[in-house]
Amino acid sequence: MGAGDRVVNAVRVLPEERSAELATPELAFGAARAALLAAAGGDATTFPVVVGHAHERANRFTVKSASTPEVAGVKVGTYWPGNADVPRHNSTILLLDGGTGRLAAVVEAGAANALRTAAADAVAVDALSREDSRTLAIFGAGHQALHECVAVARVRRLERIAVVARGGGEEFVSALRARGLPAELDTPESACASDVVVTATTARAPLFDARWLRPGAHVSSMGSDARGKQELPPELLATATLFCDLPEQSREIGEFQHAPADARVTALGHVLSGAAPGRRSPEEITAFDSSGLAVQDLHLALALLAADRGSG
Amino acid sequence: MGAGDRVVNAVRVLPEERSAELATPELAFGAARAALLAAAGGDATTFPVVVGHAHERANRFTVKSASTPEVAGVKVGTYWPGNADVPRHNSTILLLDGGTGRLAAVVEAGAANALRTAAADAVAVDALSREDSRTLAIFGAGHQALHECVAVARVRRLERIAVVARGGGEEFVSALRARGLPAELDTPESACASDVVVTATTARAPLFDARWLRPGAHVSSMGSDARGKQELPPELLATATLFCDLPEQSREIGEFQHAPADARVTALGHVLSGAAPGRRSPEEITAFDSSGLAVQDLHLALALLAADRGSG
Repeated sequence: MGAGDRVVNAVRVLPEERSAELATPELAFGAARAALLAAAGGDATTFPVVVGHAHERANRFTVKSASTPEVAGVKVGTYWPGNADVPRHNSTILLLDGGTGRLAAVVEAGAANALRTAAADAVAVDALSREDSRTLAIFGAGHQALHECVAVARVRRLERIAVVARGGGEEFVSALRARGLPAELDTPESACASDVVVTATTARAPLFDARWLRPGAHVSSMGSDARGKQELPPELLATATLFCDLPEQSREIGEFQHAPADARVTALGHVLSGAAPGRRSPEEITAFDSSGLAVQDLHLALALLAADRGSG
Repeated sequence: MGAGDRVVNAVRVLPEERSAELATPELAFGAARAALLAAAGGDATTFPVVVGHAHERANRFTVKSASTPEVAGVKVGTYWPGNADVPRHNSTILLLDGGTGRLAAVVEAGAANALRTAAADAVAVDALSREDSRTLAIFGAGHQALHECVAVARVRRLERIAVVARGGGEEFVSALRARGLPAELDTPESACASDVVVTATTARAPLFDARWLRPGAHVSSMGSDARGKQELPPELLATATLFCDLPEQSREIGEFQHAPADARVTALGHVLSGAAPGRRSPEEITAFDSSGLAVQDLHLALALLAADRGSG
């Protein structure tokens, strides 16, 4: 290493290896809840998302930035689909010193990022699904889908997880069972009879028929984070009660780019703060879209840095 | 420091104190030239610029990102106008590993950033001004203006620097003289008789009358980097031969947002590569606009990291 490869007082660096150790579903849940409250609170400002790519155009990165009274910063998320022996997704969060604008901390949060996204889902399921929800359908069998199941299982006592996968379903079921979760493969139609339905895919067309859902279901769309992505049937968006992390971003790059223009969309933070109602009846179908907020990343970084200090 | 405050193999961190030591006008000139060539070469992609702010809205940050065959990354520039004992401008550059997308390096480049901007000007003056240019007018008396004078003095044998300042001009002249530069205060009209005119201000209206310029002059606008900023008279933009770092960005947030829609604007990199002509006669007036490119930041970071390795 050169003479400059050292950390000086001003900047804290939390490398991937350390943030992966510190990131737990509990930590991510607390950070997600705080972020969703801040995002809805009017004190947070979220700036436009930039979608970039490396010279090899399939290797993409997104740049998200935000500020709140507590913190301002930037998250760079990367997706290198050809990565074989290393994760395809990575994430770096920069926090700025509020007093001077200078770089305050660099947090690598690749592993933590999957927990962050799943935690937003868990906050939504906790706030919006029926308390007596016992069954979960998961569309998708990737890394993110696994974290979604773990996070939802923390907030609802699951008796069955119906897995809908286009491939790799058996290994996925095994991975869930190894974590003590009651998973089994299912068909889309049968799975949609679950109390909670979570989609965590890269789909560009609806994954199921809205008529397969039961009254009182809650649906979380976790995969739609760019123009053209779509997981939910339009009929659902026209009839369900709609919630999301940030309405303007969800309408721009999230699942609700496909929602009717006049549909009312409530920021989940308003439900958490009590400013808006959540579910209003046991029969209502609620749908939550997570487009992924920079404020979540900033709160995640703050929580990781606090945990690091606490254990250091 | 917590247990995570350490640098692991994967990420190189170049803190401000070290990059400030390594940054020289020579290093910045080489990096700027390479970046301007890359930006014009068609192999570089520059993504939209995000202008954000902290909770205190006067504290602003910009996020710029780009990729080339060599490198991809993000620069976060901050401007905290109320900073008293620390610089108001700071800069952090993130480089991504081309092979995996993971964070490869974090370079703090606050002091280096002023050299980077001035170096683009020096490359432009070197390429576009008459070889026999001997006099420079500088509009502005700030930190950036000082670096502009130093950088231009490296590429043209200056016999006089005419300083046009709204305040603080005496100290600025003293600072230039302390560096061996032949500076004196001047009026806008008299200063505009110089061979090279550089504007480095935060102006939102033209700083001089186009008729004050002499045939054969070269003008560099260094201050316009946001919508509404303006340093040059529109009559100049309608008659001079126009060059800039990146035409689409200059028209969006640079000085050439005020250029006639049908004006031809040439990327300086095309002049450097020989693909486009630069100055075509000794009487022609040339104008260069620097809107500031992420590719410049990425090349600056690469040069700083290389210098650090070389000296480490």
